[in-house]
Amino acid sequence: MADIARCPPLTRTSVQTAHQRIQPYIHRTAVVTCETLNLLASTPQSERCPSSGPNSASEPAPHSGKQEAGASTYTARPKVKLFFKCENQQRIGAFKARGAFHALGRLIEEEGLENVRQKGVVTHSSGNHAQALALAARTHGVPAHIVMPTISTPSKIAGTKALGAHVLFSGSTSEEREEVVAGVIQETGATLVPPYDHPDIILGQGTQALELEQQVEDMLAQDASLGVPGKKRLDAVIAPIGGGGMLGGICVALQGTGIKVFGAEPEFEGANDAELGLKQGRRIESVKTLTIADGLRTPVGNIPWSIITDKQKLAGIYSVTEEQIKAALRLVMERAKLFVEPSAAVPLAVVLYNEEFRKMLEREAGEEGWNLGIVLSGGNTTMEAIAKLFEAPKKTEERAEAKVTANGERIAENVAG
Amino acid sequence: MADIARCPPLTRTSVQTAHQRIQPYIHRTAVVTCETLNLLASTPQSERCPSSGPNSASEPAPHSGKQEAGASTYTARPKVKLFFKCENQQRIGAFKARGAFHALGRLIEEEGLENVRQKGVVTHSSGNHAQALALAARTHGVPAHIVMPTISTPSKIAGTKALGAHVLFSGSTSEEREEVVAGVIQETGATLVPPYDHPDIILGQGTQALELEQQVEDMLAQDASLGVPGKKRLDAVIAPIGGGGMLGGICVALQGTGIKVFGAEPEFEGANDAELGLKQGRRIESVKTLTIADGLRTPVGNIPWSIITDKQKLAGIYSVTEEQIKAALRLVMERAKLFVEPSAAVPLAVVLYNEEFRKMLEREAGEEGWNLGIVLSGGNTTMEAIAKLFEAPKKTEERAEAKVTANGERIAENVAG
Repeated sequence: MADIARCPPLTRTSVQTAHQRIQPYIHRTAVVTCETLNLLASTPQSERCPSSGPNSASEPAPHSGKQEAGASTYTARPKVKLFFKCENQQRIGAFKARGAFHALGRLIEEEGLENVRQKGVVTHSSGNHAQALALAARTHGVPAHIVMPTISTPSKIAGTKALGAHVLFSGSTSEEREEVVAGVIQETGATLVPPYDHPDIILGQGTQALELEQQVEDMLAQDASLGVPGKKRLDAVIAPIGGGGMLGGICVALQGTGIKVFGAEPEFEGANDAELGLKQGRRIESVKTLTIADGLRTPVGNIPWSIITDKQKLAGIYSVTEEQIKAALRLVMERAKLFVEPSAAVPLAVVLYNEEFRKMLEREAGEEGWNLGIVLSGGNTTMEAIAKLFEAPKKTEERAEAKVTANGERIAENVAG
Repeated sequence: MADIARCPPLTRTSVQTAHQRIQPYIHRTAVVTCETLNLLASTPQSERCPSSGPNSASEPAPHSGKQEAGASTYTARPKVKLFFKCENQQRIGAFKARGAFHALGRLIEEEGLENVRQKGVVTHSSGNHAQALALAARTHGVPAHIVMPTISTPSKIAGTKALGAHVLFSGSTSEEREEVVAGVIQETGATLVPPYDHPDIILGQGTQALELEQQVEDMLAQDASLGVPGKKRLDAVIAPIGGGGMLGGICVALQGTGIKVFGAEPEFEGANDAELGLKQGRRIESVKTLTIADGLRTPVGNIPWSIITDKQKLAGIYSVTEEQIKAALRLVMERAKLFVEPSAAVPLAVVLYNEEFRKMLEREAGEEGWNLGIVLSGGNTTMEAIAKLFEAPKKTEERAEAKVTANGERIAENVAG
């Protein structure tokens, strides 16, 4: 990785420069809207449950335990139009391509292409960062060594190899992985490209926010009815946070624009380390969770932490339950007709089901309403994984599912695009 | 329905007029490309199976029994770039909205809005046509009576009711359904709007071809690398055929443009009635199949049949196995990141796995290659239905799955957009 001391500062201008650098290599992914999801998001949770009619559903959407809302409880009625940034359709199927292309490009600039080709790059990852680095390395003719746990799914191993990377195996603990990485570095001189805790990665991931900002302005200029009345741009963006490379990058990219930035996290087994850390005033350094949002199991890194603790940059972090993530995942697929991984559904889950967020939204957006960007961060899941999430549900889950389906259908057409 | 005798002729000009009429009510759905699927389609089936390497797959893609290709058999190497028309993101989640809005608009033109509002419209359908007509009727303030079999899934019933339609129930046979429809007509004077066998429906469904044709020209003008070298427009379009309203409409829309039109059908239990009918020189009037492509279980209607038997209009129909449909469905979701129903995956299955089609493509497209439009006809399925298709597969199916995944991954990045 390029020396941190010589990295560009974490500013909007640096993100713009990063965007120039990586544009030839990445997709300018689409931004889409969905009438059904706009309608759902703008309908109070308590009103999403029709109380009569022989075939209608009679139960509310899945609230988390702490936000249990009875019929008598007021639930927020925000006015909001959603703009989905389709990073599930980015190269390698996730936003991670942005950071990898930027980090490798900067490394080449610093050390020269021949040097980098001679030494190669190395990382440990079983997820999207592995394939992103493999793709960037292949593009520049640089050898990539990827250390993956032996327990990785065969399809991910095959996918990384298919991109020409040299795959090495390790045990699952971070010590075991780092030992293999150290061996590679000693043997080849390869440079470590970490998944999120580095300015070059953060600046690369932030580039999607520049596109989203511009694309929404272009869309509203063409068809004002896509947004809330009278507004010509985004009011806010909400994105998932795991290690924080993306959310940190978006914060940096949008600083000074007046566009607020929010983070979205799973709460299962303490996966909401960023939310909890902000409340406690200290970074939580280790997390052990098996949330279905498997891209968000990581604790926030040091540099992202330094960004998101700045209230000028981040407006807040909200978390959701596994059930809420599943419900949002279903809606993105069945309604917006987009194939995404569970992590990508977390921000929509916050928008639809986190009453604390919804009350803030109602208050802040007021009568005017907000145009809200939602990052669909990736789409790398499999039919089998989806089947496992939605097959033969236990009795209680079945009820929760039924609620959301019926809700969606009660108020909405199957509308997308 | 408007009197057939007074309907516009089945010409490209009529489709253009239909397009003008329905434009305010429908989405101009996106056209997308996917590098991975281009690469797969342009790779011979026999070369999609790497024969060495410790973690690579060693089996070919799912051939149908009749096209079994051994290692020594020549498999075609067509040159092709694919353009997917995302009618899964159309209103109500399927192309059917086009025909319904056109048919109702024409009826109102013929009989006057007040008359139509007084009498209402009626149809029998458990699928996308029910919701399409319900939406069109609600939009014009016209009462809609939808006859659905009592065994319809609750979510579809709820969905149709949610659009304000009056849902009536019947047995599952066509006699039982028609009896209930006849009762509605007698009682209310409602006009029957059939799902496909009517010129107004056919002209409405054809409008998507006009958009696809223009959108591909616009895309290639902006970025020629999206298509085969040196070509500025589509060479052909392939679309699913059930009742034939859509395929017939596309044939009519593209006549005289030089763009060839192909149909794609499931072959399971004789679902390929159009393909078989063309071979036998007579329309097959009844079909009983439980193909997973549930939108395509219908036999071709009379008027569509009169169109597709004209060799000036239709260049051919090809069919695929259930396994091939599943494999293509997986690829559209996992690779292109689009959520579609099984019927929508049938054309891609033909392009990837039907060796007869692929050899024709190689021969006709030659060194230049073809730009090929593929209609993704709809996205109305549920997570549970997907789970059922891909959960706990039997041993033989599991092997077939593994093949395709490994193939995709061997040659390709996870690229979309």
